[in-house]
Amino acid sequence: MERTVLKFGGTSVADLERIHHVADIVAMRAQQTPRLAVIVSAMAGETNKLVTYAQKAGADQLSPSDYEDEYDVIVASGEQVTAGLLALALRQRGYKARSWLGWQLALQTNMAHGSARITGFEGDAFPDAVDSGEIAVIAGFQGVTGKNRISTLGRGGSDTSAVAVAAALSAKSCDIYTDVDGVYTTDPRIVTKARRIEKISYEEMLEMASLGAKVLQTRSVELAMNHKVPIRVLSSFKGLVDEDNSGTLVCDEDYIVEKQIVSGVAYSRDEAKVTLFGVADTPGMASRIFSLLAAAGVNVDMIVQANARGPALANMVFTCTSKHSTLAEDALNRARDEINFEALEVNTDVAKVSIIGVGMKSHTGVAETMFRALYEKGINIDVIATSEIKISILIEAAYTELAVRALHTAFGLDAA
Amino acid sequence: MERTVLKFGGTSVADLERIHHVADIVAMRAQQTPRLAVIVSAMAGETNKLVTYAQKAGADQLSPSDYEDEYDVIVASGEQVTAGLLALALRQRGYKARSWLGWQLALQTNMAHGSARITGFEGDAFPDAVDSGEIAVIAGFQGVTGKNRISTLGRGGSDTSAVAVAAALSAKSCDIYTDVDGVYTTDPRIVTKARRIEKISYEEMLEMASLGAKVLQTRSVELAMNHKVPIRVLSSFKGLVDEDNSGTLVCDEDYIVEKQIVSGVAYSRDEAKVTLFGVADTPGMASRIFSLLAAAGVNVDMIVQANARGPALANMVFTCTSKHSTLAEDALNRARDEINFEALEVNTDVAKVSIIGVGMKSHTGVAETMFRALYEKGINIDVIATSEIKISILIEAAYTELAVRALHTAFGLDAA
Repeated sequence: MERTVLKFGGTSVADLERIHHVADIVAMRAQQTPRLAVIVSAMAGETNKLVTYAQKAGADQLSPSDYEDEYDVIVASGEQVTAGLLALALRQRGYKARSWLGWQLALQTNMAHGSARITGFEGDAFPDAVDSGEIAVIAGFQGVTGKNRISTLGRGGSDTSAVAVAAALSAKSCDIYTDVDGVYTTDPRIVTKARRIEKISYEEMLEMASLGAKVLQTRSVELAMNHKVPIRVLSSFKGLVDEDNSGTLVCDEDYIVEKQIVSGVAYSRDEAKVTLFGVADTPGMASRIFSLLAAAGVNVDMIVQANARGPALANMVFTCTSKHSTLAEDALNRARDEINFEALEVNTDVAKVSIIGVGMKSHTGVAETMFRALYEKGINIDVIATSEIKISILIEAAYTELAVRALHTAFGLDAA
Repeated sequence: MERTVLKFGGTSVADLERIHHVADIVAMRAQQTPRLAVIVSAMAGETNKLVTYAQKAGADQLSPSDYEDEYDVIVASGEQVTAGLLALALRQRGYKARSWLGWQLALQTNMAHGSARITGFEGDAFPDAVDSGEIAVIAGFQGVTGKNRISTLGRGGSDTSAVAVAAALSAKSCDIYTDVDGVYTTDPRIVTKARRIEKISYEEMLEMASLGAKVLQTRSVELAMNHKVPIRVLSSFKGLVDEDNSGTLVCDEDYIVEKQIVSGVAYSRDEAKVTLFGVADTPGMASRIFSLLAAAGVNVDMIVQANARGPALANMVFTCTSKHSTLAEDALNRARDEINFEALEVNTDVAKVSIIGVGMKSHTGVAETMFRALYEKGINIDVIATSEIKISILIEAAYTELAVRALHTAFGLDAA
């Protein structure tokens, strides 16, 4: 029995008019697939309103462990309302439908209120209801802990709910309706010739997501990859019979016959480059520096070590987000006596540009093509980092758009 | 181990400022009584907003049985938010507190969504938590059905929740904080000398409530009477150390030593008098008329039958609410051939005024005092109805205030 999961985010259910539009989409889908589960977010703005209430009620003066459980009770009400409203809108159209809350599913999570992780599903009532042909409208973003309390999955958690439900139902696909019509080869605001990608592998999508393409939450893609749930990203704003709303399929690499060498170009401006000049080039020094940074809560991205001018001295370069660079600077300065570096420099006027593609694994000359394209535009490369399916470079922030456009053209991604 | 239940209605938790004020009251009470359960309503206006959403989502085009379950999911979110917020405000003041939703309690109800009746409590987690000294902040108005779905108890259901929780906890008292400081001998807007009643019996309160004094929901008083839970009505708007906030105690008649002959004067303007002229005075006629009215959904209040001018003819007079009088008129006119009355008259320009008091049971001359007081003011009595603890009269609406004031004085209720 084929089951399908659909998910609609906050902007797709922003008001009653939009909720009725979503009901039209779901009704259309129900005619093709009789076994449907629909995950909904809170109406846009509602979650922020509830968070503000919680802050004003006292959360702003409490430590997270003292407020997060109640915060979840308050915030989870937003999705509860949307689920009830969409169920009504579907019934008004003559469909059988009912709402399901996290505790009713029961979508079990750990005790990490505010950013809980899903640990499993309980009971058969929910899959049985779906198989009976009743459309299940699920309040996303929420679950229930072992102590029978409401938990939330953190920002973007509704995508994760949707994939978890799809996995539990062994759904044919998990269709994420959003305010864009798919995943693009790069940011269309920068490159007008950006193209929608038809199919992209989980690994590529993970790199795209973590590198700044904000279409899908990283956690939901990881979960989909682990459970081999195909995700389709498509638009909830397009017309109902718009033939071009096929979106982007995020799936296992094996299902992608024509592998692109490079599938997309991503960029991020929220970067900082931290340089430690004149560090002693002794064993264990790198380990000491990076364990110190980890303790300070700094997520380090790229790392480069180079010889410095003096003997037995090295320059240590790493990148992190701008926000984390302040933490890094403080931690390193406090440990100056221990590490004994000559100087510390933080530069936030940098950007990271990356090319991503599973085809890279089996093709040579990709890096050369990238570096030549940048050289021809006179762009200086500061730091380079590579993985199996991506190459990232750090450049001066002012060159971001120029670099993205040059790479998009160089790898044949421009739309005809 | 003495337990106390407090309840705060919608106007008492209307915004964050009011919620903090409620937290101050609860904190003060917690210092006197360490075992506390607090029932809260939705923030004023929130329930109406959610009802409007539900209507616009499709409820307005569905029959109640097709929308009430989802309506409950949507509307119950209002109390959920308040419960979380008050728990936070109490924690910020250094108290242990947590929210409890209907399904967590578990407050079991029947399947009558929208106006469910409580059938019982399950589990020990909740009383155990209260006994541990953690303040239980309970989302009022809601329960859970045997099918594990959210139910609501209908308008004013939070009072009923509070009494049910008090009964389940064998609480010493159930204190209903509201926007008035108690139950008055009559409406202070009409009689400036109206006094706050210190103690009133359940039976008297039931008559007061059903006769138009809107302080407490009738259902909650019935439940309190059945479980012998003392209710105290007091103000959430008075100062925290205001000595005069002792409110009104609603309790068993046995606890009232000094019984007033008349405790209060109630009135209702939402009345209609329906007269059927010239009905055949045969056995079974009354039964036929009133079963017909019952089938039409008319709640009949007072009934009088009098001889009419012709032989074997009677005039049948009854009263009901103005709204129901239209139903009654339609039903009777449709059955005109069967009942064969001469004429039908509906008069909505009437009011009902009642005196209520358990002392009436053991005192004579109460009716005489009442009728004389009205006669002296030139007020004509149209219909009279009596019960063990009340006498009601129907009069011309214009005389309402005059009658209420005259009776308030005649029975010695005026404040010094």
